[in-house]
Amino acid sequence: MYDLPVQNLIDEFGRLPGIGPKSAQRIAFHLLKLPETESLRLAHAIIEAKERVGFCEQCWNISEEQICRLCSDIHRDNDSLCVVEEPRDVAALEKAGYRGRYHVLQGALNPMEGIGPEQLRIKELIVRLSNEEIQELIVCTNPNIEGEATAMYLARQFKPLGIKVTRIASGLPVGGDLEYADELTLGRALEGRRDLNA
Amino acid sequence: MYDLPVQNLIDEFGRLPGIGPKSAQRIAFHLLKLPETESLRLAHAIIEAKERVGFCEQCWNISEEQICRLCSDIHRDNDSLCVVEEPRDVAALEKAGYRGRYHVLQGALNPMEGIGPEQLRIKELIVRLSNEEIQELIVCTNPNIEGEATAMYLARQFKPLGIKVTRIASGLPVGGDLEYADELTLGRALEGRRDLNA
Repeated sequence: MYDLPVQNLIDEFGRLPGIGPKSAQRIAFHLLKLPETESLRLAHAIIEAKERVGFCEQCWNISEEQICRLCSDIHRDNDSLCVVEEPRDVAALEKAGYRGRYHVLQGALNPMEGIGPEQLRIKELIVRLSNEEIQELIVCTNPNIEGEATAMYLARQFKPLGIKVTRIASGLPVGGDLEYADELTLGRALEGRRDLNA
Repeated sequence: MYDLPVQNLIDEFGRLPGIGPKSAQRIAFHLLKLPETESLRLAHAIIEAKERVGFCEQCWNISEEQICRLCSDIHRDNDSLCVVEEPRDVAALEKAGYRGRYHVLQGALNPMEGIGPEQLRIKELIVRLSNEEIQELIVCTNPNIEGEATAMYLARQFKPLGIKVTRIASGLPVGGDLEYADELTLGRALEGRRDLNA
């Protein structure tokens, strides 16, 4: 249908997460219509980011340096470590006010897609836990099947080592409505109920 | 929050149509996680497309050549010309089976955004109509305010020149349901009713 470079551009955009064929086409045509300097800005941003950004060798978050800004910050709390799936989860926890350490697994267990413990940064986490003085491992993987499986796996791995492994709470979102909560979430919210008189 | 090249990448994706800040972040992290060759493929697809693809000097559709494949095809019908807003509309009409000529306006009249007749390829359309033997101008701009205004403008421009200007029909989509049609569409469908006995 289209000339090769155009089809190629549409295909490459279509490979990105959350972009369907229609959006890919829309974006490609948008870029073709823009002045050259503006559309090349995107290409150069990709090239520059891939050149300059790698992973922190301690927490495996994305980082320009060998050790990222958060890991090299001496003012952060060293007692707790949040285990997350992806770099974007670090950003979310920072916004929520957490000021301890992080470890980015770069995924969650998913045997159907061939992702086992070896594909995640779990080996690196084991090394960290023997080197650093961490009291509590807060497992902040997503509350879905893969994230829960990963949390269970980590708990089983680290319990024998005498490390406290906790899991973030599941329940109703703040500002949410009981009526619209799904039954699984409501079940979890009930299970996780807390004593208000305590 | 993020290192400069990462923030830059997120910002550039956020500028694309239909991509909000969350999606931009998701795509950026996806690219950072991919092997280098794979994420650079997108960058190179953009650069190559911008280098090789321009606009057809006759119909203003995107094209690798000075005159595009459709314009240089001698087997196409020369009597009618479809006026569309964007290159993607040409693809849609081709799929619908239209086999005449095209003219891509590269937008629609939108005074609020500073898009007047001079910003569109209307001058070029006037030149074409005096050079080519076109009997009917089928205005296929979108059935929204801007598209309708553009259609009205074109009809007024070309009526004095003795050219037949038609507009694609508005009405119920095929397979649609009368009950769910909005009142404007239903109104148009009534207005455009056809005699079945004719």
